[in-house]
Amino acid sequence: MKIALAQLNYIIGDFNFNTQKIISTVHEAKRKGADLVVFAELCVCGYPPRDFLEFSEFIELCENAAQQIAKECQDIACIIGLPTRNPKIQGKDLFNSAYFIEQGSVKAVVNKALLPNYDVFDEYRYFEPAVDFKCVEFMGYKIALTVCEDLWNINDNPMYVTCPMDVLSLEKPDLMINIAASPFAYNHDEERVLILGDNCRKYQLPLFYVNQVGAQTEIIFDGGSLVFGKEGQLLDEMTYFTEELKIYEFDKGQVKGLKPIVHDPQSDIAQIHDAIILGIKDYFQKSGFTKAVLGLSGGIDSALVCALAAEALGAENIMAVLMPSEYSSDHSIQDALDLVMNLGCKHEVIAIKEATAAFQNMMKPVFKDLPFSVAEENMQARSRAIVLMAMSNKFGYILLNTSNKSECSVGYGTLYGDMAGAIGVLGDIYKTQVYKLANYINRERDIIPQNSIIKPPSAELRPGQKDSDSLPEYDVLDAILFQYIELKQSSASIINMGFDEALVRKVLKMVNVAEFKRNQAPPILRVSPKAFGMGRRMPIVGKYLS
Amino acid sequence: MKIALAQLNYIIGDFNFNTQKIISTVHEAKRKGADLVVFAELCVCGYPPRDFLEFSEFIELCENAAQQIAKECQDIACIIGLPTRNPKIQGKDLFNSAYFIEQGSVKAVVNKALLPNYDVFDEYRYFEPAVDFKCVEFMGYKIALTVCEDLWNINDNPMYVTCPMDVLSLEKPDLMINIAASPFAYNHDEERVLILGDNCRKYQLPLFYVNQVGAQTEIIFDGGSLVFGKEGQLLDEMTYFTEELKIYEFDKGQVKGLKPIVHDPQSDIAQIHDAIILGIKDYFQKSGFTKAVLGLSGGIDSALVCALAAEALGAENIMAVLMPSEYSSDHSIQDALDLVMNLGCKHEVIAIKEATAAFQNMMKPVFKDLPFSVAEENMQARSRAIVLMAMSNKFGYILLNTSNKSECSVGYGTLYGDMAGAIGVLGDIYKTQVYKLANYINRERDIIPQNSIIKPPSAELRPGQKDSDSLPEYDVLDAILFQYIELKQSSASIINMGFDEALVRKVLKMVNVAEFKRNQAPPILRVSPKAFGMGRRMPIVGKYLS
Repeated sequence: MKIALAQLNYIIGDFNFNTQKIISTVHEAKRKGADLVVFAELCVCGYPPRDFLEFSEFIELCENAAQQIAKECQDIACIIGLPTRNPKIQGKDLFNSAYFIEQGSVKAVVNKALLPNYDVFDEYRYFEPAVDFKCVEFMGYKIALTVCEDLWNINDNPMYVTCPMDVLSLEKPDLMINIAASPFAYNHDEERVLILGDNCRKYQLPLFYVNQVGAQTEIIFDGGSLVFGKEGQLLDEMTYFTEELKIYEFDKGQVKGLKPIVHDPQSDIAQIHDAIILGIKDYFQKSGFTKAVLGLSGGIDSALVCALAAEALGAENIMAVLMPSEYSSDHSIQDALDLVMNLGCKHEVIAIKEATAAFQNMMKPVFKDLPFSVAEENMQARSRAIVLMAMSNKFGYILLNTSNKSECSVGYGTLYGDMAGAIGVLGDIYKTQVYKLANYINRERDIIPQNSIIKPPSAELRPGQKDSDSLPEYDVLDAILFQYIELKQSSASIINMGFDEALVRKVLKMVNVAEFKRNQAPPILRVSPKAFGMGRRMPIVGKYLS
Repeated sequence: MKIALAQLNYIIGDFNFNTQKIISTVHEAKRKGADLVVFAELCVCGYPPRDFLEFSEFIELCENAAQQIAKECQDIACIIGLPTRNPKIQGKDLFNSAYFIEQGSVKAVVNKALLPNYDVFDEYRYFEPAVDFKCVEFMGYKIALTVCEDLWNINDNPMYVTCPMDVLSLEKPDLMINIAASPFAYNHDEERVLILGDNCRKYQLPLFYVNQVGAQTEIIFDGGSLVFGKEGQLLDEMTYFTEELKIYEFDKGQVKGLKPIVHDPQSDIAQIHDAIILGIKDYFQKSGFTKAVLGLSGGIDSALVCALAAEALGAENIMAVLMPSEYSSDHSIQDALDLVMNLGCKHEVIAIKEATAAFQNMMKPVFKDLPFSVAEENMQARSRAIVLMAMSNKFGYILLNTSNKSECSVGYGTLYGDMAGAIGVLGDIYKTQVYKLANYINRERDIIPQNSIIKPPSAELRPGQKDSDSLPEYDVLDAILFQYIELKQSSASIINMGFDEALVRKVLKMVNVAEFKRNQAPPILRVSPKAFGMGRRMPIVGKYLS
């Protein structure tokens, strides 16, 4: 039996696009001699469809698309993922299903039992968990077909009470196939290889695992579909961050012609780089835009976003706007111009003094002689946002947000100012990682000027301002933030680790107080296991732990 | 047995506040002769605690608070709600529990089985559903104690597979007690009375039902705790939108001294009014602010928000800022001034011409001779936001957002401009409801100037502009929006209802395209069954139904 794994990039809700892509891949797999072609979880509608699933029309369109695909499956079988209606009166309306299609019709429907409902996942919002499990027979083989998370309950993972493979394995299947939509986070590939390999060992079955690829707003699917032997040995690993169709031969309980390989991941930073590039590219392609605008301060964050955007969209599609104020240092402007030169992107210089002077003058009768404060600082940041949004509104550029995760965490940014943008490129990347990523961008030649990398970070909103005036050094800050945000540690336990007590309390308080800001921040490309946005849901009004 | 129902307003995560409030109510109930005092669901930590529940420290603080409360329960029993750890290895870490406390210690723990995970609810994200059910015995009575949604699966409600009361009723209990956190939406009170009454009839048991009261950012709990006889007859209804402690006597299967009453709700608009007032009040009180700022255009939306805020916070705490531009009509300024006079709130007049002229001048080298467009319109709206946020930053005012639901739906608003604000006061109120609410405010005397109510709505961002230039009349628009947003109807079925096809497609497209804007909008006080925000989760990038 020849099995084709189709690792593709879908558009949520674009049934024409997805259906045509699936059908043309079915034909390609057939031409290449495959007996069965396997697509990813919810491939018909894209993942995550979110509340589209509550629209009856959406479910009908899924079913129609599946029928269209089925018609094309002559002399080749196919597995697709889609939401289907739960025929029972009780329970939720839908299942998260896999169709096994043979000779033009749906031969078997497999429903998902373990519905992830943590972090970015909301599957229990829509789906009823399956309780019946049955293998699918094809070409004399018994296939234990499961959907994503259904292979995630094993060994010491205590999250779920049921374990579909424990039931399926009673039928003595010949192999496992799993269709997934498993999003990227750095190191998540290693966890996947580990857990899926454990499944093979536990059930003594080979596994074909197909993941999605492509970014859906903040969630980035990295592909990396996998093939394992029955001892859990990794036999093949498909590409990361790109589409691929690959064919394997399965015979007598073995995947033919493949020797065990070692999972040899790229560095975290290289992975994050590739994820961000795909994230930017897909945000633009899937929303029908080509051109980006961003403010270039001469600092490392905006320089990095500019370089990443140029790589993702082409330098010719990037408009970098330099918006110096009276507090901008000369070197900042030069550093920004150097970057523009290195990248070859377009740029404009629009000084903001006239606007800030106007606002200061307008507010004078109200502010009188009150001292310069955060109000005046924010006027600058917000005037820049007006300029950038004017560029966006006039020319159709999409504004990229350049805030990093350290800033987002402690609220070191101006709402409706530098926190503006359609998509946050660095919002899940701590400042200490920003440096690493900048050096990675410069790995062959200096693209980001060294000056932008080595100078002390500053928002330049008042004379001689440095980030370190209001924040601890970033290596200390990021270490505390990681404990609180990623690991959900209490202040007491973070202090116990040896961090200064007053500092820990100050940082945690800053994180908590900034919740109302983050709530209005753009979606953030997710590269860590705990990104701000839909994966971290905190009350806005409330008293926080301290 | 004397049962006290304590309908209180909690602060999420404020253990001192909640614990002290509960303890002092325990003592008050005891003084008044109660044998048992019943508090609402998750009263110990407030509802919804969201991802606080993932912090181990938070759960410890809940348990500590419960122990503190237990100590105070001498010669009075008490029921409180809190998250508790799931002792089993498998399943989620927590239960959503009720403690039955007697003589200083926890006598019984009841866990919730039906975990709402729709709309604004995310309970399955945190909690394991209970599978064991047992009545609690107290003073010779067998009490079927359940938590909120566990009484929501009855008759033709197909959402859940299990039904805790079916199990509990086998023990032949004497009464039901349900502790709830059931949020307000207009008409939801009627649904509650209906479903809870059905439970009583079905199981032939009286019911004591305690709801929370108070707003938690966007979610508003309306109280309205209920007492039913065993035939489902409503016997008492506690106040709506305020705290109350009330004592009932239960004897020989009867609630003593109460005759059946008819649930006689206020009008939708009066309910919405009360909910919004509580929503504003609690947003400020619970976040420690007292003063609000808003932009007053002379139009009905900002006038209404100003009147509501003055009622909630006191007119002396409201700063209304009039920000005329060259396109503002004279009557707009006069209408705004009339309102300020009627309310007695503070105001400033800050013309924005200087700022918009500065931006136009700054953009001139880039925009050259391109015609006036949405870019220039948005500059005005965003300049106003800068002024308002400067007031906020300088003086500690909180900015109120004045966008209504019709505007939020179709994206008729400027991101980082009039869409700015800490909390959306009217974001769940369609324009047609805005008029009704304004007339309700004026029910005794004209507070909102008639001029603001009767003149054709206009954003006044270009000469002679009217909303009806870009939008259909609001009665038609709102009717279409209601079908799409509240009822999730397809374009085809909305067209089938008799609406113009091109118009329906245009409106739905506007709603879909505005998703990226709404994603960055402030939280919105929720008064309908389907508000924008956490209760409606749509993809940002994707192809929408059309």
